[in-house]
Amino acid sequence: MTSPTTGRATRTSRRSPAAPADAGRLSPAGVAKQPGTARIAVDLLGGDEAPAVVVDGALRAMRTDPDLQLLLVGPMEAAGALLDALDPADRGRVTVRPADAAVDMADDLTAARADTTIRAAVAAVRSGQADALVSAGSTGATVTAAALGFGRWPEVRRPALVAALPAVAGTVVLLDVGGSLEPSAATLAQHAVLGAAYAAVAHGLAAPRVGLLSVGTEPGKGDRARRLTDPVLSAAELPGDARYVGLVEGYDICLGARADVVVTDGFTGNVLLKAVEGAYAMAGGAPPGKAAPRAAALLGVAGTVVVCHGAARTDDIASGIALAAQLWRQDAVERVAALLAENRNLCMTDIEVRTS
Amino acid sequence: MTSPTTGRATRTSRRSPAAPADAGRLSPAGVAKQPGTARIAVDLLGGDEAPAVVVDGALRAMRTDPDLQLLLVGPMEAAGALLDALDPADRGRVTVRPADAAVDMADDLTAARADTTIRAAVAAVRSGQADALVSAGSTGATVTAAALGFGRWPEVRRPALVAALPAVAGTVVLLDVGGSLEPSAATLAQHAVLGAAYAAVAHGLAAPRVGLLSVGTEPGKGDRARRLTDPVLSAAELPGDARYVGLVEGYDICLGARADVVVTDGFTGNVLLKAVEGAYAMAGGAPPGKAAPRAAALLGVAGTVVVCHGAARTDDIASGIALAAQLWRQDAVERVAALLAENRNLCMTDIEVRTS
Repeated sequence: MTSPTTGRATRTSRRSPAAPADAGRLSPAGVAKQPGTARIAVDLLGGDEAPAVVVDGALRAMRTDPDLQLLLVGPMEAAGALLDALDPADRGRVTVRPADAAVDMADDLTAARADTTIRAAVAAVRSGQADALVSAGSTGATVTAAALGFGRWPEVRRPALVAALPAVAGTVVLLDVGGSLEPSAATLAQHAVLGAAYAAVAHGLAAPRVGLLSVGTEPGKGDRARRLTDPVLSAAELPGDARYVGLVEGYDICLGARADVVVTDGFTGNVLLKAVEGAYAMAGGAPPGKAAPRAAALLGVAGTVVVCHGAARTDDIASGIALAAQLWRQDAVERVAALLAENRNLCMTDIEVRTS
Repeated sequence: MTSPTTGRATRTSRRSPAAPADAGRLSPAGVAKQPGTARIAVDLLGGDEAPAVVVDGALRAMRTDPDLQLLLVGPMEAAGALLDALDPADRGRVTVRPADAAVDMADDLTAARADTTIRAAVAAVRSGQADALVSAGSTGATVTAAALGFGRWPEVRRPALVAALPAVAGTVVLLDVGGSLEPSAATLAQHAVLGAAYAAVAHGLAAPRVGLLSVGTEPGKGDRARRLTDPVLSAAELPGDARYVGLVEGYDICLGARADVVVTDGFTGNVLLKAVEGAYAMAGGAPPGKAAPRAAALLGVAGTVVVCHGAARTDDIASGIALAAQLWRQDAVERVAALLAENRNLCMTDIEVRTS
């Protein structure tokens, strides 16, 4: 399979057929790793420990995945350090786009300068130099740059960050974990739709169970935004044959017994994800391979974007790059968008009207 | 020490002197268990597994604490089951206030009927039949009944539920965990004041560090309510020589390295507490004796009230009763109120003005 020339091209040949309704919980077409080159733009200046930790994470990702190519976006010195550490035979897998100004975490988001690594990475994907991008820089700046550079999907007002948490029973898709911070019923309902489609496509779940996070499971529990959203989702048809299971609680994020997709606002989701990480530290560590994720996919923009935590370590950067490559190879972003387009009359417009 | 005749009486003789500023992190006067009888009203019908689990929890609490007396509020049959299980010599430690109607979780809070066990328990404390009360029933109904029956403290609009979580470094006082669900800057700032005073009094911390939970630590991180609250707390003087340390993140709840008191809205706090519990289950259990608490103290009303989780088990009910007895013996509620009264000109009024 040849490498596509643009990250935004339609790749119908790679699209897997939808799983039949009787295929059980897992649709192998959705989870199977697709072969082929993935060209990932990496923001060398994103993250508290950048560029050192980004360079190390990028090296690790390249060693794990021989079909991975990287476009390094950042200062030449940092890119040079990575190239020096690579086996000479692998240097052909790396290109560099020089850029110097990181977005400072304290910057006002709307004042993000044009000449930043994250904007350069977005531009590289737009122009077809890379297929997807990864940044551990400011989440707000990344979301803004991606929404401006790639465009938002029709009717999606607020892009969502989606994390996949290992749970006692399978995997739980949690969103939003920081894309937009103010809770609103319209955003919660739209994110339920996004999460259902993502679980079907990226995790191959045949009929995902979608829950709305609240302070109890009885109808009527929660703040105003949750009380408005719950009946709307009860009446909505969700993509991917997803089923709304009602209100779920904090336990359900790590247990996974009640829902495959847990929907909450970006403030609560972000705080939760970090609290789970802290709880694992308190308990002496998560089970092997089950740590809380420090990389999240951005949903709602027309491009493949992975955001790593600002405190990302080498492993986290490597995981973020691997996630971006996986999403690209699965054609996940376009398949989620297609699933939403098919279901648009059933869900998005309806939800928009009911919660506005 | 004789048992006071009313839960609302001032007991200056029991008030410990304030810890000197150079006493280090722990003020022994604050944490030492005080001797003396504690008479706890227990809502037999509160909780998903009531009355059986409440009866078992009450028995366990009585066996652990020989100076504990219980006023059982609920159906005679349930009270009879507890009395039958007690050693005859201990039956004198139990009295019964018959009441039959629990608050159904699905009830509208404002429609809570007059003849409920939680209202009867509040009335029992008001009239001096008991010193404090414990319920695992509807949190909303308990907060409402307590606010109506005991009255709110001056200037506290929204009572807070306060949980104490074992952390890697000491204990973290987390509030609000469900007293009020809509985030507002005025409530967050007032709860920071309540939490600081509570940590000083109930946990004996000489100069508690108070943090505001958000999605990052840099000033300006968070939703609108957090961005409004952060500068107000930076300028506020807090009771108990507490110090505001700025924004903290989800990790800090279980790590405890950055703050002794973590302030958030009741929606986020409730979901968090349960997520931490789920994470411990995922990790194969919390370290011994370090489980996430399922009992929380209500702060902001003029009475000692402990709310247990609706899914409370025997141990949780016993812990809740022990917490109520401890708070009563420490004279915690009155000492917190006194600390707030001393600091009122410095903090509460100021905060009210700045965030309104």
